[in-house]
Amino acid sequence: MKRIYLLVVGLYLLSFSRAEEGLNFPTYDGKDRVVSLSEKNLKQVLKRYDLLCLYYHEPVSSDKVAQKQFQLKEIVLELVAQVLEHKNIGFVMVDSRKEAKLAKRLGFSEEGSLYVLKGGRTIEFDGEFAADVLVEFLLDLIEDPVEIVNNKLEVQAFERIEDQIKLLGFFKNEDSEYYKAFQEAAEHFQPYIKFFATFDKGVAKKLSLKMNEVGFYEPFMDEPSVIPNKPYTEEELVEFVKEHQRPTLRPLRPEDMFETWEDDLNGIHIVAFAEKSDPDGYEFLEILKQVARDNTDNPDLSILWIDPDDFPLLVAYWEKTFKIDLFKPQIGVVNVTDADSVWMEIPDDDDLPTAEELEDWIEDVLSGKINTEDDDNEDEDDDGDNDNDDDDDDDDNSDEDNDDSDDDDDDDE
Amino acid sequence: MKRIYLLVVGLYLLSFSRAEEGLNFPTYDGKDRVVSLSEKNLKQVLKRYDLLCLYYHEPVSSDKVAQKQFQLKEIVLELVAQVLEHKNIGFVMVDSRKEAKLAKRLGFSEEGSLYVLKGGRTIEFDGEFAADVLVEFLLDLIEDPVEIVNNKLEVQAFERIEDQIKLLGFFKNEDSEYYKAFQEAAEHFQPYIKFFATFDKGVAKKLSLKMNEVGFYEPFMDEPSVIPNKPYTEEELVEFVKEHQRPTLRPLRPEDMFETWEDDLNGIHIVAFAEKSDPDGYEFLEILKQVARDNTDNPDLSILWIDPDDFPLLVAYWEKTFKIDLFKPQIGVVNVTDADSVWMEIPDDDDLPTAEELEDWIEDVLSGKINTEDDDNEDEDDDGDNDNDDDDDDDDNSDEDNDDSDDDDDDDE
Repeated sequence: MKRIYLLVVGLYLLSFSRAEEGLNFPTYDGKDRVVSLSEKNLKQVLKRYDLLCLYYHEPVSSDKVAQKQFQLKEIVLELVAQVLEHKNIGFVMVDSRKEAKLAKRLGFSEEGSLYVLKGGRTIEFDGEFAADVLVEFLLDLIEDPVEIVNNKLEVQAFERIEDQIKLLGFFKNEDSEYYKAFQEAAEHFQPYIKFFATFDKGVAKKLSLKMNEVGFYEPFMDEPSVIPNKPYTEEELVEFVKEHQRPTLRPLRPEDMFETWEDDLNGIHIVAFAEKSDPDGYEFLEILKQVARDNTDNPDLSILWIDPDDFPLLVAYWEKTFKIDLFKPQIGVVNVTDADSVWMEIPDDDDLPTAEELEDWIEDVLSGKINTEDDDNEDEDDDGDNDNDDDDDDDDNSDEDNDDSDDDDDDDE
Repeated sequence: MKRIYLLVVGLYLLSFSRAEEGLNFPTYDGKDRVVSLSEKNLKQVLKRYDLLCLYYHEPVSSDKVAQKQFQLKEIVLELVAQVLEHKNIGFVMVDSRKEAKLAKRLGFSEEGSLYVLKGGRTIEFDGEFAADVLVEFLLDLIEDPVEIVNNKLEVQAFERIEDQIKLLGFFKNEDSEYYKAFQEAAEHFQPYIKFFATFDKGVAKKLSLKMNEVGFYEPFMDEPSVIPNKPYTEEELVEFVKEHQRPTLRPLRPEDMFETWEDDLNGIHIVAFAEKSDPDGYEFLEILKQVARDNTDNPDLSILWIDPDDFPLLVAYWEKTFKIDLFKPQIGVVNVTDADSVWMEIPDDDDLPTAEELEDWIEDVLSGKINTEDDDNEDEDDDGDNDNDDDDDDDDNSDEDNDDSDDDDDDDE
């Protein structure tokens, strides 16, 4: 077995100033663990690891800033590789120019993407490129794809997961062929969509499931839809989940935030900011859930809920980009191509809109009556509805701000 | 006012490959924002910012590894300063040797600490030194110290916060002198302990509070203790909170994890690992809550609950140090000086201990019958003193043994 070489350096600060042991955060020990993948070493690398994590990148340019950014990514990957060293996960880089052939063979298309090979499957990581998010993603990938729910208390745990898509199937036992199909289907969506199963009659009864039946739970809905025509093949399950993958209300999650953002409807997202741990935010989220339940059959409606607590590093950026105050709940429409946006007027967070008012506003958005373009010619400083500008202390030239953020992003569109 | 210069660089990966706008993570733009503090610029710096964040460090040594670690801290601080640039927060470094006098004057004692000056108050940050944790900590510090609970839905939000100490007071209105004392008291504990208030009779009735009364809620307990002898002065409130600050069951939180770890009882912590979003973990946490409720009056009992999901980067380290499998619930005793530990035998995560069994085990821990020393001589390696030399990998033989036993964790107990 490989020798574990974790934490040689330890956290500098802790090493020198603390008397306690037990919370030593890893810092990069300087050892190279991430290797370049080529046609030559491919076979060997694939053989060696259960899981292979591949960073597919464009050639490192001569631009200093770009180089530094690339190095930062490298360090993140090295740290992740170091932390997970005893989990038998390999980490490699694939240069899109040098290894064009190899990349094509592996089916890689988007430079700057992170792929994971597991068994015969390729999983794309489309989340926040941070060590903690990546580590959790990879740990979730090496867990069993299906969680077993054994008793009443565990049903409670299952029921408490309300903000994510989840499936639960009732099967005879672990050897059931239908359970095996369910497991295979789960692997298609691991770790993004959680699959649960039970072999316990009491649990199945509580959840109103018949033998070999699978319930599909949309986020925030009280009742699941039972997938029709049991028993199911792996393919039938996969197809059903793919068809129902965009719920009426869903949270933005660090582990797949970019994929979710790309899944817009006609170029826009209806975005709601609500901090769940804050009384106002909680109240607003409850109202949103009400709206989602009332409109769950509307395929044109998909609201993206963002809890600012989950994205501390983006709060200031969002406040600036959207010209809103994120210390209070907000709902708006965002154009995903230019981040142009328009926000519902909520004059006072003690007086949030009712579900009916929200539905009227949403109707106006879906009909195009409220859109991000109409206000573009109005002078923002003169109109009455910019009470949301409170965090903007530099609005001397809003065009310049746009230039800044555009510069680095639209080069190759 | 200063121009906002956020996101000039943008996230390298995103810049070149994505068509969408709206999720641009900041990366460090290379601009120096963190300055060195000296007697000379102190006054000017203090005047300029509402909040001042000070990193008190020992002189940078000539050791290369130490230098690199220091640079990483610097980059984290620079990034935080960049992200929060429009929030009027200053960031400075204080060299403990060069500025010994200044440090003494500011009351800094522990090198490697991060302090925040706000008004006349010094707040120590004793959490994970990561950009997102720091940003959230600072954003929480500039919010109002007291959250207002206005209606029934917001009471629900308040009640859902079950894993933290919280206080709620009922006052006449914002001008009440008792409310003002409550606000002042809140500032002593911001952002670590949450203070809520209501001016609404209906809310107060629902929470059984009389005018000017404050309820103190221990984590996971159903009923609050009403602080005696209302109305209270600021000092009385502060004293009460300080006296009741160590609950029977509390979570380890990134924002004050080191402080919590230092708050051990007789050099040990009873540590329970349970992943709340996992059925087994949820079930185990429910059992722990039961034990905590039954023993809330025992001042010698304080259980630390760690949700591995909150600390992805530490999971591998803990598994290695404590020789346990964190894919399932665990409870054990950890000696904080050397991280030596002993863990309850939980043969099967489908068959978790009952509350009674846990209480018996805890009793044995508190009486000393179960302790971290007894097993040191009957250890698998026959060399009792290094079975927990977590950070040391200089002993080839014992490490390899440990690797093996890692997989099937508790077999040797």
